[in-house]
Amino acid sequence: MDNVKRTPIVILNFKTYLESTGNNALKLAMASEIVAEETGVNIIIAPQSPDIYKLSNEVKIPVFAQHVDAVDAGGHTGSSLIECIKEAGAVGCLVNHSEKRMKLADMDAVVKKAAEISMVSVICTNNIETSAAASTLKPDFVAIEPPELIGSGIPVSKAEPEIVEGTVDIIHGINPKISVLCGAGISTGDDMRAAMDLGAEGVLLASGIIMAKDPKEALLNLVSKI
Amino acid sequence: MDNVKRTPIVILNFKTYLESTGNNALKLAMASEIVAEETGVNIIIAPQSPDIYKLSNEVKIPVFAQHVDAVDAGGHTGSSLIECIKEAGAVGCLVNHSEKRMKLADMDAVVKKAAEISMVSVICTNNIETSAAASTLKPDFVAIEPPELIGSGIPVSKAEPEIVEGTVDIIHGINPKISVLCGAGISTGDDMRAAMDLGAEGVLLASGIIMAKDPKEALLNLVSKI
Amino acid sequence: MDNVKRTPIVILNFKTYLESTGNNALKLAMASEIVAEETGVNIIIAPQSPDIYKLSNEVKIPVFAQHVDAVDAGGHTGSSLIECIKEAGAVGCLVNHSEKRMKLADMDAVVKKAAEISMVSVICTNNIETSAAASTLKPDFVAIEPPELIGSGIPVSKAEPEIVEGTVDIIHGINPKISVLCGAGISTGDDMRAAMDLGAEGVLLASGIIMAKDPKEALLNLVSKI
Amino acid sequence: MDNVKRTPIVILNFKTYLESTGNNALKLAMASEIVAEETGVNIIIAPQSPDIYKLSNEVKIPVFAQHVDAVDAGGHTGSSLIECIKEAGAVGCLVNHSEKRMKLADMDAVVKKAAEISMVSVICTNNIETSAAASTLKPDFVAIEPPELIGSGIPVSKAEPEIVEGTVDIIHGINPKISVLCGAGISTGDDMRAAMDLGAEGVLLASGIIMAKDPKEALLNLVSKI
Repeated sequence: MDNVKRTPIVILNFKTYLESTGNNALKLAMASEIVAEETGVNIIIAPQSPDIYKLSNEVKIPVFAQHVDAVDAGGHTGSSLIECIKEAGAVGCLVNHSEKRMKLADMDAVVKKAAEISMVSVICTNNIETSAAASTLKPDFVAIEPPELIGSGIPVSKAEPEIVEGTVDIIHGINPKISVLCGAGISTGDDMRAAMDLGAEGVLLASGIIMAKDPKEALLNLVSKI
Repeated sequence: MDNVKRTPIVILNFKTYLESTGNNALKLAMASEIVAEETGVNIIIAPQSPDIYKLSNEVKIPVFAQHVDAVDAGGHTGSSLIECIKEAGAVGCLVNHSEKRMKLADMDAVVKKAAEISMVSVICTNNIETSAAASTLKPDFVAIEPPELIGSGIPVSKAEPEIVEGTVDIIHGINPKISVLCGAGISTGDDMRAAMDLGAEGVLLASGIIMAKDPKEALLNLVSKI
Repeated sequence: MDNVKRTPIVILNFKTYLESTGNNALKLAMASEIVAEETGVNIIIAPQSPDIYKLSNEVKIPVFAQHVDAVDAGGHTGSSLIECIKEAGAVGCLVNHSEKRMKLADMDAVVKKAAEISMVSVICTNNIETSAAASTLKPDFVAIEPPELIGSGIPVSKAEPEIVEGTVDIIHGINPKISVLCGAGISTGDDMRAAMDLGAEGVLLASGIIMAKDPKEALLNLVSKI
Repeated sequence: MDNVKRTPIVILNFKTYLESTGNNALKLAMASEIVAEETGVNIIIAPQSPDIYKLSNEVKIPVFAQHVDAVDAGGHTGSSLIECIKEAGAVGCLVNHSEKRMKLADMDAVVKKAAEISMVSVICTNNIETSAAASTLKPDFVAIEPPELIGSGIPVSKAEPEIVEGTVDIIHGINPKISVLCGAGISTGDDMRAAMDLGAEGVLLASGIIMAKDPKEALLNLVSKI
């Protein structure tokens, strides 16, 4: 688990693009693995849940789930147990992504359950206030992503540096063990460098890499100024 | 696809029991395959989505998803594309299960998308009226399951035979191509026989088999009076 | 109830515009009442639920709820019983509006409960298939509104006349007692006339009237070519 | 607003019981007003939203909404603006009740909007961790209610005193301006006294009063040992 949490960290969210589904997901996972090995950076991939098993068997870098439902074993057709996701090979999960917002009580339940079975949790948030709230639930990471910048190509680290800095400050005041990531509009080495200069220990990103002409080159560029 | 739709049909919903998760899911899938081969009955399994890839690679019987989100390719973190589910090996899906009710417009979108990519769709319903509504969307199957009997051990085919008959009648009046299944409380050969005598062409069930001491024996019993 | 269902009918959805909230809602209700009295057209208003009581006490035209939750009496904090909505003065309700889509089983429950306590129900739908499904639930009206045209200013009766005609045909084939309304982009007398020429017996609309410089004039224009 | 926040405080959640709907809601409001006047205790009522207008016009005690949707003015059919709720006469609102759990980002939005228009906000929570999270959003009150005790008749102040104390401690460590209430199973004067001895400044309750043979007597008993 400590190895999975090593910073600086890059979490590549595969979302539901066809470019990152099935066999395309496997290609992207292999490109990510090559960059991780070449650069030594901790690159984590978060594919759709039906792709977790295959990808975690084919590559050595950590695989996360994009979401975990707050359900216990029983009659919950259409949901997936965190135990199922773990057994398929995932070692962590995103929680409360802006495209899958969760109820507060469910976030709390999922973060606790992840900790119990030694999975890493990353709560996504939209502003300084909700970042503070998230940090009281004791996840391993909080990833601040102003929703208006997601997929915009405008990096949060340049457009709203005060949100990244403010999040780092308030979270470290509450619980210094929690690492802050940032996302939204991140795609280049400069964006990631700027994020780290603001106190972030890594980035969470998607389309900037997935939709790039050459995702491997894009990833190499992203981590070039760490 | 015609092979997948062959009746009489048994759809075994794995839900989110630990007894049907991960390696336990694989054991249950293999038991189901043996019974399908021994008896010639069309047995379909519906595991949690992270288990689809492994199970569809290990057994030859059809694998269904328990649910499909009504999303198109793009930014939908935490959902899974039907294309992803298909590439993982599923050949069909449940829609609107009582534990994962869907909006009408989303049910329509998923059934259409399943048909486009040659996946079988099974809409689950709770009474005669919603069964009629479901059948106008042209799924391959409608599975009527009165919610109050799910997991009760009291078979719908005995407790509320008029709901099964009424559903068969109204659906065949609207679209005779749609096959009706029934579920809720079904576990024995007598239950399945009674369901078929009422016009159902198969059953959808879960705990009666999954939680049985010997699921293989329970399945053999279930299909013994077809 | 028959009086409330008299066609041609205009249902003015107040949505959540500040222009149709509180005192502004009352002004709009009074303008609607004047037009209804002057022209004899059956104009119905659907305000936010906290405004139902005041409006139904101040004007004589029918008041509908924009939505009803599918809950029975008991512990459902934050929802409103249909009995509460009725006692506040509403005589009908919209069901499954595109901005408040409902689960199929819940639509069925609300339509049945409305009928039991003599309230008029109007199911909103997005295409011909879901309109057919809606009509099997036996509401008083089905209002077809292609979501892509809502608030667009492009009237469905001109942009996609085949959807209105197709909806009228399929619904009358299933249940000729159900009247079809149409919405999305409707604002002028020509739009409403075109809708009625396609078989619709009225319209459901919002911003075209609410955001008009002079809502009363806009309403007079709307019903000028019936 | 200060008057509304005066402690000790009793918030009577009307939920969706028929006993607290429409005219019955009015009777209950009047009984609450009498007890507030006789005893000087700050009693607040939270009826269903269609009842807010009538009740706030008929009684002088404060009226709260049971829930506010996190929507801004515009096209949100079926929701109610907080501005609409305020204009109808409410001076505060419950947020995230266990029967209407909200997404974290929506809770943040509603609490901010309530503060902007001078409405009092009460976030409901289920345990110590989510209470801490809630307090970082700066509501006026946090009401801790272990869900398993709601409607049980077993008062949280006796069954799980450590949850009430732990909530008071953690919240006062984060933000001493926030008052803590407690709920779940509360119905008698002893229950309320025990709650206050644990550091709570009031209670949130429902069925214990609403379903009492004589709600006025039950309220008098509730506040008898403050």
